[in-house]
Amino acid sequence: MAGSYYGNLFKITTWGESHGKGVGVVLDGCPAGVLLDEKVIQKCLDRRKPGQDPYQTPRKESDQVEILSGVFEGKTTGTPISMVVYNHTQRSGDYKEIASYYRPGHGDYTYDAKYGFRDYRGGGRSSGRETIGRVAAGAVALQILKELKISVTAYVTKIGPVEAEKRDLTQIEKNPFRMPDGDSAQKAKEYLEQCIREGDSTGGVIECEVTGIPAGLGDPVFEKLDANLAKALMSIGGVKAVEIGDGCKVGENKGSENNDAFVRMDGKISKASNHAGGILAGISDGSNLILRATIKGTPSIHKKQRTVNREQEEIEIEIGGRHDPVIMPRAVPVVEAMTALTLVDALLQNMTARLDGILTFYER
Amino acid sequence: MAGSYYGNLFKITTWGESHGKGVGVVLDGCPAGVLLDEKVIQKCLDRRKPGQDPYQTPRKESDQVEILSGVFEGKTTGTPISMVVYNHTQRSGDYKEIASYYRPGHGDYTYDAKYGFRDYRGGGRSSGRETIGRVAAGAVALQILKELKISVTAYVTKIGPVEAEKRDLTQIEKNPFRMPDGDSAQKAKEYLEQCIREGDSTGGVIECEVTGIPAGLGDPVFEKLDANLAKALMSIGGVKAVEIGDGCKVGENKGSENNDAFVRMDGKISKASNHAGGILAGISDGSNLILRATIKGTPSIHKKQRTVNREQEEIEIEIGGRHDPVIMPRAVPVVEAMTALTLVDALLQNMTARLDGILTFYER
Amino acid sequence: MAGSYYGNLFKITTWGESHGKGVGVVLDGCPAGVLLDEKVIQKCLDRRKPGQDPYQTPRKESDQVEILSGVFEGKTTGTPISMVVYNHTQRSGDYKEIASYYRPGHGDYTYDAKYGFRDYRGGGRSSGRETIGRVAAGAVALQILKELKISVTAYVTKIGPVEAEKRDLTQIEKNPFRMPDGDSAQKAKEYLEQCIREGDSTGGVIECEVTGIPAGLGDPVFEKLDANLAKALMSIGGVKAVEIGDGCKVGENKGSENNDAFVRMDGKISKASNHAGGILAGISDGSNLILRATIKGTPSIHKKQRTVNREQEEIEIEIGGRHDPVIMPRAVPVVEAMTALTLVDALLQNMTARLDGILTFYER
Amino acid sequence: MAGSYYGNLFKITTWGESHGKGVGVVLDGCPAGVLLDEKVIQKCLDRRKPGQDPYQTPRKESDQVEILSGVFEGKTTGTPISMVVYNHTQRSGDYKEIASYYRPGHGDYTYDAKYGFRDYRGGGRSSGRETIGRVAAGAVALQILKELKISVTAYVTKIGPVEAEKRDLTQIEKNPFRMPDGDSAQKAKEYLEQCIREGDSTGGVIECEVTGIPAGLGDPVFEKLDANLAKALMSIGGVKAVEIGDGCKVGENKGSENNDAFVRMDGKISKASNHAGGILAGISDGSNLILRATIKGTPSIHKKQRTVNREQEEIEIEIGGRHDPVIMPRAVPVVEAMTALTLVDALLQNMTARLDGILTFYER
Repeated sequence: MAGSYYGNLFKITTWGESHGKGVGVVLDGCPAGVLLDEKVIQKCLDRRKPGQDPYQTPRKESDQVEILSGVFEGKTTGTPISMVVYNHTQRSGDYKEIASYYRPGHGDYTYDAKYGFRDYRGGGRSSGRETIGRVAAGAVALQILKELKISVTAYVTKIGPVEAEKRDLTQIEKNPFRMPDGDSAQKAKEYLEQCIREGDSTGGVIECEVTGIPAGLGDPVFEKLDANLAKALMSIGGVKAVEIGDGCKVGENKGSENNDAFVRMDGKISKASNHAGGILAGISDGSNLILRATIKGTPSIHKKQRTVNREQEEIEIEIGGRHDPVIMPRAVPVVEAMTALTLVDALLQNMTARLDGILTFYER
Repeated sequence: MAGSYYGNLFKITTWGESHGKGVGVVLDGCPAGVLLDEKVIQKCLDRRKPGQDPYQTPRKESDQVEILSGVFEGKTTGTPISMVVYNHTQRSGDYKEIASYYRPGHGDYTYDAKYGFRDYRGGGRSSGRETIGRVAAGAVALQILKELKISVTAYVTKIGPVEAEKRDLTQIEKNPFRMPDGDSAQKAKEYLEQCIREGDSTGGVIECEVTGIPAGLGDPVFEKLDANLAKALMSIGGVKAVEIGDGCKVGENKGSENNDAFVRMDGKISKASNHAGGILAGISDGSNLILRATIKGTPSIHKKQRTVNREQEEIEIEIGGRHDPVIMPRAVPVVEAMTALTLVDALLQNMTARLDGILTFYER
Repeated sequence: MAGSYYGNLFKITTWGESHGKGVGVVLDGCPAGVLLDEKVIQKCLDRRKPGQDPYQTPRKESDQVEILSGVFEGKTTGTPISMVVYNHTQRSGDYKEIASYYRPGHGDYTYDAKYGFRDYRGGGRSSGRETIGRVAAGAVALQILKELKISVTAYVTKIGPVEAEKRDLTQIEKNPFRMPDGDSAQKAKEYLEQCIREGDSTGGVIECEVTGIPAGLGDPVFEKLDANLAKALMSIGGVKAVEIGDGCKVGENKGSENNDAFVRMDGKISKASNHAGGILAGISDGSNLILRATIKGTPSIHKKQRTVNREQEEIEIEIGGRHDPVIMPRAVPVVEAMTALTLVDALLQNMTARLDGILTFYER
Repeated sequence: MAGSYYGNLFKITTWGESHGKGVGVVLDGCPAGVLLDEKVIQKCLDRRKPGQDPYQTPRKESDQVEILSGVFEGKTTGTPISMVVYNHTQRSGDYKEIASYYRPGHGDYTYDAKYGFRDYRGGGRSSGRETIGRVAAGAVALQILKELKISVTAYVTKIGPVEAEKRDLTQIEKNPFRMPDGDSAQKAKEYLEQCIREGDSTGGVIECEVTGIPAGLGDPVFEKLDANLAKALMSIGGVKAVEIGDGCKVGENKGSENNDAFVRMDGKISKASNHAGGILAGISDGSNLILRATIKGTPSIHKKQRTVNREQEEIEIEIGGRHDPVIMPRAVPVVEAMTALTLVDALLQNMTARLDGILTFYER
């Protein structure tokens, strides 16, 4: 039942509800000696916070993080790092109506079915606000990866029917959709404005590329790197598909079309192509990781919808308020966070794979 | 590093290599009182074993399972159930050549990168033979699900370009491809024979449908049912994409196209459609679960390929022997097993979700 | 490395340092529907807080707890319960001296050896203040046990050479030492005053009795109830021995002296004696649990001591300030908390032991 | 419910019943490159097996171990190591009587209470035979510790009233009681013969000393080294008390009597005494570890005893057959195994404690 834990050696617990006192995370197992202050964390949270542009929910939250433990004299101490973001908007009143029925596509019904009742204010625990804890802990993971010269970059490759046609990473922060292709971003804008006019939302795809990853990460046969990344991404609200490398395309391909030839490059073993997305038999092969998560359009739409209320009567509803018509841009830092958390855990676990590595470590 | 464990309360450990003495599994946490004998297990294993028809590797293995512990007087005792299948084909000699180079698309290189060396005989631990332990333990999970009137049925919906056009579950065991559509199976046969002639293999898709599942399974925010199912399926060799419900399609859809209206049906809350695939906010909603795994064509192809040997020299290879040109039909029981294991674990964990349930339990 | 986690289904993470911003805990896996507010928690914390009487450190801390999540309309929601106690005394200055050397009997040296440096302020993470999180989460566990009519009562049975001669539980809160025997408490007082005059501290023993526990808790062979209780108690700072039932005495006894005869009592199977302390083969037998933890005298004494500083020079030190000369009375609620946390986890896990119980549960 | 798992990174699962087909263990997370064959394992098992001398059960079992996986060309591969010992004595008939009643001091009643029925043959899973899996996996752990120049030595320090007066480790294997003191062993022999004549058994104490352990092992505040060792030892059948260092004695001592002064020795920080038993604040301090487990006299005695049968009638029984009147000598290798397993896990986990260590590792 304890479902708010993630990771084995580098382990987080997120907590908090959308309209409770706050949200937060405890990160345990962070190595001692990582340079850390609130600015490092804040930078990541700011990319996730609401109201960054007109295409997002205008909820006013500064999302200021406070580190409560685990850091001393500017460095992590190896003890748990507790981080909190207090909520400023706690208007329960607005949600009294939602309390009485089950919004389609949301967790209202399933939370009730499981727990017998629910904190209905803004979705409670099933709100996207829960990801604040993930992003805060992910910021620490990204800091560690940086020391290891590993980069994690996510971006939006698809908004409804609009697909990014190139991967120009310099474009990502230059458009409100975090697309790596300015032209596509422009088309996405048009499509999105149409969705908004219709009171609708749109799905899309986030891709994530990781560079600098060593070969050897992942522990067959269940703690495979791709298996853990799939869980990591699928645990993000709204994600309905996860792909590695060529992903769904391999279903149509022949074996010869997927196999990546090994070659020598710069005196090292490398691959001539990367259909595998950097993972073979569940272990990283040293090529870039390529992951993709497909996210559904946020279910909070303004169109009239049928549903059932707590008294099990069929009713028609129209959800008011303003909601993100497109969630992908704000989910980009969440994908990066979950990827980073998974990678740091895999990196730590991999240190114990060989006796010679252990002997060298303890001979220090 | 301990990666051969799966599950929390209903927990398995698989062991064994393709050409070692055998493969097996220990299942711990199985409730006492489940009727069990070797026939129940064997039936599942027989669907997985090689040589069932001309489209599979002709390796001769009877894959006879033996239960070594945890069952007494025909019932599980609540203690660990150890099951073993001894290997009969242990021809190390055949693999000496493979020992010297890295087969594209296989784990040869990554195992070496991680562990410093590898059991190269038939892929060692990365062989599909490892899944025998999964299927054996999955058979016990399926037995428990049956008692709860939950069914798990997987089938092949795509082989290369050939897609099943209907879901007629009575067809599944009537064609060698386990497709729920006889006509498509016929087309698949033709496509596959072409692949074989070319010395190539083909990818495809397995879908899995679960009926009878109660609402309430899954533990947000990381032990979500879909997150765990994604991990379960992605941990199967060759899987490159996992989808829930409408899966990748939601990336092109609007919110209004994904939202399933809640309705009353037979006096209970139900859904008018099932785009969600039976899971909302990570918790089962009582509708059927719909999962899909895309699998790459087996990388063991007969075409000439470039690669690198252990001395890091670039070479050309041609892999001999006979291999499955299509792995999906034999992977069907593996998908069912991993789904069943994940569901039983979720069912057990869900028993502790509410105080009233706990009080009732202990008042017995 | 992630060591601040405890429990499997009912799982806590404590965080915080003695002189950081605060200390706290996240409790995940708490069943929905438990009546809970801050008063319930505060009552337990007040028994642990410093300055309750002249025999304790006079550090001024009100130890006010705040619940930040997981409770809605007075009941737990099944989502993580985050609780925080902010520190008011954060005087780093006082500890500059301690920063430079290793206090005997404390964790100063070992934390440095492990992490490379340490938060030296008041012992940082190794401070007894860390147990606030345990007591707060334990209060929730005790609340659940109360619903199940299970009571957990700890008390001090030994302070240095003074042993409690009876177990009169009504006496526990009537003397500052939480001894179940007023006369012994008087003798302990005299002994303790002598210790204080000498600038010394004293060890002792805490016993814990649990009534109302059903038979069947504990999961052989590693998650045995006694094994987990041993870990739970040994994880409390200063504990050097853990005993179950007759404990160390069984080393001198014959088998016939330990065996408890089974008898019928009130129409149920019971035991004529309880040498076993309520646990047989790692599973509760329905009798009362009897546990004991032996705690060393707090190492912060005023006597002159030899030690080594960070420059590895041998020096003589005299630790100033005022410290608890006897830690047992304040550790009583900590022992109760750790016992309660362990029991709730065992109770939840035990719900899945039998198929018939599972079938009944899901037929609801 | 899954209770047959131990360890986090270096993880074992034991399985098997006393009179089932066999007993065994799967060890997952063993680093690649450890030299291993069956002889290494067998040597440890031979010290545990029955019938080594007249003071032990004469059950005939050769306890021959077979390694089924995870070893290739004489070295561990990093994949799961499955080991099995087949039972030769599977006489169910002998146990029909035991099936009908609950032996005092045994797990018969508690297993029935938990699981609804039990494998009654020879105690089933609660038999001491279960420890074969622990010793087999422990042998691998000891092999790794040897490479790190860490030694683990257990011995019997007390048999009933007879205490070893010295710790001469060269004596351990020279007497049937594994006492480190020949004279005490002689007295123990006399005491034991008296117990046998009376149809009784005797309790005692096993001590374990670990040398060569680096400072820094153990992860506060729940994965403390002493907490995990307490669990490890308390999980062994019959253990009722666990002590670290001065153990129970600290309850009578003053702080000044327990504090170990830090000193410089051979250019390193060391301690002038070792009351702490090598662990401070849950982390190893570089001194020798000193652990003690008190074990009760085996409950299978020949004296007449009262008990209750499955029909809940009170009866008198006399247990026939021949049983170990003293279990400590055979438990010595089990204590060593559990200690070794715990230490290897702590060593692996400790590798991730500091960023600098991680950076160095990945710069290789």
